[in-house]
Amino acid sequence: MQSFIPPKRTLMGPGPSDISPQVLQALSRPTIGHLDPLFIKMMDEVKELLKYAFQTKNDFTIAVSAPGSAGMETCFVNLVEEGEKVLVCRNGVFGERMRQNVERCGGIPIIIDDKWGEPVSLDKVAQALEENPDISVVAFVHAETSTGVLSDAKAIAQIARQYNCLTIVDAVTSLGGVPLLVDEWQLDAVYSGSQKCLSCTPGLSPVTFSDKAVAKMKSRSSVVQSWFLDQSLVLGYWSGEGKRSYHHTAPVNSLYALHESLLMLKHEGIEQAWQRHADYHQELKQGLEALGIKFIVDEEYRLPQLNAVYIPVGISDTQVREQLLEEYNLEIGAGLGELAGKAWRIGLMGYAAKKENVALCLKALSDVLK
Amino acid sequence: MQSFIPPKRTLMGPGPSDISPQVLQALSRPTIGHLDPLFIKMMDEVKELLKYAFQTKNDFTIAVSAPGSAGMETCFVNLVEEGEKVLVCRNGVFGERMRQNVERCGGIPIIIDDKWGEPVSLDKVAQALEENPDISVVAFVHAETSTGVLSDAKAIAQIARQYNCLTIVDAVTSLGGVPLLVDEWQLDAVYSGSQKCLSCTPGLSPVTFSDKAVAKMKSRSSVVQSWFLDQSLVLGYWSGEGKRSYHHTAPVNSLYALHESLLMLKHEGIEQAWQRHADYHQELKQGLEALGIKFIVDEEYRLPQLNAVYIPVGISDTQVREQLLEEYNLEIGAGLGELAGKAWRIGLMGYAAKKENVALCLKALSDVLK
Repeated sequence: MQSFIPPKRTLMGPGPSDISPQVLQALSRPTIGHLDPLFIKMMDEVKELLKYAFQTKNDFTIAVSAPGSAGMETCFVNLVEEGEKVLVCRNGVFGERMRQNVERCGGIPIIIDDKWGEPVSLDKVAQALEENPDISVVAFVHAETSTGVLSDAKAIAQIARQYNCLTIVDAVTSLGGVPLLVDEWQLDAVYSGSQKCLSCTPGLSPVTFSDKAVAKMKSRSSVVQSWFLDQSLVLGYWSGEGKRSYHHTAPVNSLYALHESLLMLKHEGIEQAWQRHADYHQELKQGLEALGIKFIVDEEYRLPQLNAVYIPVGISDTQVREQLLEEYNLEIGAGLGELAGKAWRIGLMGYAAKKENVALCLKALSDVLK
Repeated sequence: MQSFIPPKRTLMGPGPSDISPQVLQALSRPTIGHLDPLFIKMMDEVKELLKYAFQTKNDFTIAVSAPGSAGMETCFVNLVEEGEKVLVCRNGVFGERMRQNVERCGGIPIIIDDKWGEPVSLDKVAQALEENPDISVVAFVHAETSTGVLSDAKAIAQIARQYNCLTIVDAVTSLGGVPLLVDEWQLDAVYSGSQKCLSCTPGLSPVTFSDKAVAKMKSRSSVVQSWFLDQSLVLGYWSGEGKRSYHHTAPVNSLYALHESLLMLKHEGIEQAWQRHADYHQELKQGLEALGIKFIVDEEYRLPQLNAVYIPVGISDTQVREQLLEEYNLEIGAGLGELAGKAWRIGLMGYAAKKENVALCLKALSDVLK
């Protein structure tokens, strides 16, 4: 067995996305202790930078030391207690995962379904909350990674507030790629992933809780079922006054990389990053349409950073993806769940949202589909 | 705000430990997709290398995508159901954490306590199992990171088997530093951490389950309370026949680093690694004793890789550690829990177990304590 030397791929799937050389360089800097004063200071900067990315002033803004799925679980296990009713808006794989999370922490999921590829219906949300006055939390996916659809987080949160509900929002694919205004939209618990539009390595999950969410967490009547994800314990490490208390060993080098990727976002400017995603999406869209490829999602609700398209009739899904990978070192994503075998998901996330990637993808697809 | 450029520290605390340049280099290789065939092949190699490190043939041998605390939780949430009695042997911080894990997954912890700095008493284990015939799991810490004591995992597991109990074993600090023979000792569920004697970056938790543990997991009557840590789901990604199914996005680069660090262990030979830890421990021990510093743990039960010593009378804990860090770029560990302010923990883990580290530590301590 030998050292693993990966090829240099162009990553245009649903994540991980292309990573800049600066971020990889940051990742490999010398490890220091997780309680080293310099590291604690860097963690404080990560918090500040995450606040910028989330567009929030929430004190409780950290990175969970595990992938996005653990960020999702963090929100549910801390904010849902046994017997609580949670409205789950399901229009793809990750809404369904939310339902499972609710059940596993003893909550009662009330489900509204929308078709895959369509956004969450505001009318259904309002109707479900009207019919179930004891629902206390509304959970939905802002940007569905399985279908490429964007839902109206601001409007859903507004309805939730009318019914005194907290919101749990999956922003794994939206953070950094499309507008996500946590404070302005008054979202309560929002989680994301490091490996999508932040273009950091996979393995961390940025999370932010509003004061209302923190208050709910603090007034729980039961202990959080997960020790590792219990944020009342984690907070002592991420923001203990004066002295930080050990909870678990932070993934030191991964946090260096997140720091660097967030810094790049700050330097570019988040509005500029959103615009860049929108612009290259337009370029990719025109090229795909010229190849006769059709989008799954209506233009109005389409995610610029995740382009879900139908596989052309008569074309072999796996053969095309294998050829792109082997001959062009280009990864595009397969369909997931209901869309497996029927769709491709072409990511333009973070550092991957650039002209040369669009050009490579269009030319390679055009060659391979010939 | 600027890029974070950490200093080059010598890490001789309780982990993270010094990391070799090869491992840091592996960490920063280009990210590829978590479902890329080349990555899947590398994961298979990680499994093989972990089997070597654990000295096991267990099929179920993987790395949990989160730190050691999540590895601990993985064992408890998958193997303990509501109402089950678990014997928890507590002789330090991590035994207490095990108790909390049992409670949080609905189990009933039966506690036996041993003094901090002493190993788990075999007599107490046998007596507790005799008195509580309905205990089904025995949980203990092989190498207590908070005190530097080694318990007799082989003997505890033997007693547990006499009473038809599975064992859950914390090997966070033992793996790679002292003999840990999972198959020969018939241990059932064993978890570790990447950042101790494997000298990889923090953030991953190697875990192995015996066939008996897997059978117990498969015959559960309830769903595992954690979606993220549900190993019946994770297995589809780490070892699906033919096709791997997506569960979560693996921490790709961290797994490159683990692969490299395990490869280094394989190349050195695990018996040689154990011997190296023992040898440099002897050298450190003689030097510390010459400085009048006393060990907390009796020689017989002492961990070579984690030297817990009493802070000499009249010496300021924080002042010494700060001086070592600021003037010598040397990190040693503070005491934890009961031993906070009373002890230092000097690690000689993995790549840190070498002559120059022992020399630096002894000379720096001797200077600072003058």
